[in-house]
Amino acid sequence: MPEPALSPHRPASALLTDLYELSMATVYDAEAMEEEAVFELFFRELPAHRNFVLTAGQDECIRFLSGFHFHEGEIDWLRSLDRFPEHFLRRLASLRFTGDVYALPEGSVAFPMEPAIQVRAPLIEAQLVETFLLNRIHSQSVLASKAARIVLAADGRPVMDFGARKAHGSDGALALARCSYIAGAAGTSNLEAGMRYGIPVMGTMAHSYVQAFEDEERAFERFCRQWPETTLLVDTWDTLRGVERVIALIQAHPGPGKLPVSAIRLDSGDLGKLAWQAREKLDAAGLEDIRILASSSLNEYRIAELLREGAPIDGFGVGTEWAVSPDAADIDFAYKLSEFAGEPRMKASRDKATWPGAKQVWRSWHRGSMQGDRVCAADEAPIKGSEALLKPVIEGGERLAGALGTLEETREHARKQLAALPEALRQPEQAASPYSVSISKQLEADKEAMLRRYLDER
Amino acid sequence: MPEPALSPHRPASALLTDLYELSMATVYDAEAMEEEAVFELFFRELPAHRNFVLTAGQDECIRFLSGFHFHEGEIDWLRSLDRFPEHFLRRLASLRFTGDVYALPEGSVAFPMEPAIQVRAPLIEAQLVETFLLNRIHSQSVLASKAARIVLAADGRPVMDFGARKAHGSDGALALARCSYIAGAAGTSNLEAGMRYGIPVMGTMAHSYVQAFEDEERAFERFCRQWPETTLLVDTWDTLRGVERVIALIQAHPGPGKLPVSAIRLDSGDLGKLAWQAREKLDAAGLEDIRILASSSLNEYRIAELLREGAPIDGFGVGTEWAVSPDAADIDFAYKLSEFAGEPRMKASRDKATWPGAKQVWRSWHRGSMQGDRVCAADEAPIKGSEALLKPVIEGGERLAGALGTLEETREHARKQLAALPEALRQPEQAASPYSVSISKQLEADKEAMLRRYLDER
Repeated sequence: MPEPALSPHRPASALLTDLYELSMATVYDAEAMEEEAVFELFFRELPAHRNFVLTAGQDECIRFLSGFHFHEGEIDWLRSLDRFPEHFLRRLASLRFTGDVYALPEGSVAFPMEPAIQVRAPLIEAQLVETFLLNRIHSQSVLASKAARIVLAADGRPVMDFGARKAHGSDGALALARCSYIAGAAGTSNLEAGMRYGIPVMGTMAHSYVQAFEDEERAFERFCRQWPETTLLVDTWDTLRGVERVIALIQAHPGPGKLPVSAIRLDSGDLGKLAWQAREKLDAAGLEDIRILASSSLNEYRIAELLREGAPIDGFGVGTEWAVSPDAADIDFAYKLSEFAGEPRMKASRDKATWPGAKQVWRSWHRGSMQGDRVCAADEAPIKGSEALLKPVIEGGERLAGALGTLEETREHARKQLAALPEALRQPEQAASPYSVSISKQLEADKEAMLRRYLDER
Repeated sequence: MPEPALSPHRPASALLTDLYELSMATVYDAEAMEEEAVFELFFRELPAHRNFVLTAGQDECIRFLSGFHFHEGEIDWLRSLDRFPEHFLRRLASLRFTGDVYALPEGSVAFPMEPAIQVRAPLIEAQLVETFLLNRIHSQSVLASKAARIVLAADGRPVMDFGARKAHGSDGALALARCSYIAGAAGTSNLEAGMRYGIPVMGTMAHSYVQAFEDEERAFERFCRQWPETTLLVDTWDTLRGVERVIALIQAHPGPGKLPVSAIRLDSGDLGKLAWQAREKLDAAGLEDIRILASSSLNEYRIAELLREGAPIDGFGVGTEWAVSPDAADIDFAYKLSEFAGEPRMKASRDKATWPGAKQVWRSWHRGSMQGDRVCAADEAPIKGSEALLKPVIEGGERLAGALGTLEETREHARKQLAALPEALRQPEQAASPYSVSISKQLEADKEAMLRRYLDER
């Protein structure tokens, strides 16, 4: 894996924030509300039919927080709004993030009510970064979670990211390539992602290539001459005739040396049936080593179905489905104040369950498998034999050594996390019983006490 | 509207392309396939329950094409792959887009089979830009179409973009603010979008603000002191008590001068019922002018329902739903070769309907309302009284004067397009009969001739 040739991230703007963050911060400043706040970023419920969330985006958040600042031109623009006091603008111009941050390592599996990121910082700092943190953790966890399900469904067969064209902008395409790679994709078609992240790049031909030639035979022959051991797309005209042309091409190969073709790709029609028919033709010609790849609106359900039917498909290309995750296009992530000035805080609504105070999540393991999680107050005694999932990544505004893994390390972490999921949770279908996440007695007691106090007093 | 303070677009990389585009281009280069190709970018079918697509992204595509080039570092990285012939890399380094482009003006309503963009350029150029064009037109048309439905449902009431936190990356958040503004949103919470595009910015407070204070009364009072005529979020503890506190605050106002509060916002619970109760309390206190805004998982269906029930809501904040468009997270846009070297081309598959050759779309109008569209071969005679929708925007690689409207002009164009939709298509529900799009006899005849020829010969 080569090192990325350029910085893997474009500088992110502190101005990717909502106006209301600055409106609130102006009042915090006027009221000298400078004490430490604890905010936690978590989701309340899994999307329908989902068994877990594979969290991603922490890497970008850590880089953003440790480098947080407004550019001069941004302050000038804020000034042009004629809205904020000048001393506040000057404060913003020199504002840096000075707090502590705890996070689940990127590529960790998470369940409802488990903070993916916990920010402990002076109120203004912790408030201003809300929009960015939610933006990155939400969108990248949507991508990584969908990709994990698809990779699990492929059951060891390589899955390639073909989704750049359907992703949301350049950011979306880069995040898709990176998140799907973390989730176990074999590589991406996206060259920009290949350059920025060092992800293996893949891809050979589209239908337009074949159409641009007078006939398919010549299109194939010229392609193989340039790119021996390639993958030929065989369904532009007639899939099985396409396969026959591939066989003829290989048989006409003068050899020895590289075979002209190593795989064919099916991109339309009844993929299972066509894969069987293609396999038969290839095998009958003694070409058992030529692999069959499939693409065309694939997702975890369709891949699982094809493999259940025994379709002889050796690898998959996935595009739209993991670029936008249509079955769960959003996850209900929120960023909630849980403590301020040493006092626990919460939104007092009995139907939207949250718990006050800073938290830690403890995961119990048995023989390499996740057994259940417990959300506790951060100051509760460790649970013996369990793992504390939230790790320190930033201290006093400084990134800690080891806070960022390499992409390969993050991918390996995700692989182990997915492998440790109970088997029922690794299936596309919703598990009969969800993963166990319990709330500690202390948190429940704190919540009840707060609800009584707030609803009576306020 | 102030001019954007910075260039409204970050430079886009020509490397946002799929490896297969370069793999194919290498062969085109080797085979001296330098003739002009015509590619068309269109969708085959509307997403389920949708009546139209509001196209967006053309502006970025036009900027990208007219400035198309690989950076030196990108060529170096491609060289490091040890994959492409050196003469081809040198060709890429100096490659510019020299073709002609026709497009629907950004903010135009489109229907199935109607090209949003048509590229006529030497084959290599037209092939390499596929990924970028699809990426921008697809994602931004998804955003604009959802936003248009939501704005139509709000029936003249202002709708604010609160979606930056749930959008896909910075690009996604910027595109959401811009596309929703084109579709008629009143403004955005996203400051980066405000600075880049000059879109009005909006937003006052979150629950965390209220929670950070000892009590709601003080939180409100301090906020109004800083921001007179503000919007107060009243549902942190108990919505109706929150409304009573707002009334007390206004009544305690020494006046004359600005009122401390101009609106309240509801963000949880039964929005319709709470709006009625809040309205009654406000009106009883003589505060008929205080507006009621609502947010919380709103979409076009929910907004239409609230208004059908007569809920006294004066404006809406929308976030997640138009950031990811969960009910139609993708549209089946494709970029297809329709002509090469002066000959029509198509993918020969009877189940996936496409028509060969370069096209034009003619729209007929009656008293300011769209009556039906006809997709014709580009060289067919004009249809009298109809409008040719595809307009030239780039000629010989150069952007034409008037190819890009200002954001306000694009918004006004979209407003007129949406106003001209037949009434049934403006509703959230699927219209009983879809908008009429017919295919010209010449295109049908060309298609049948090609199918016969290809399926026989190839």
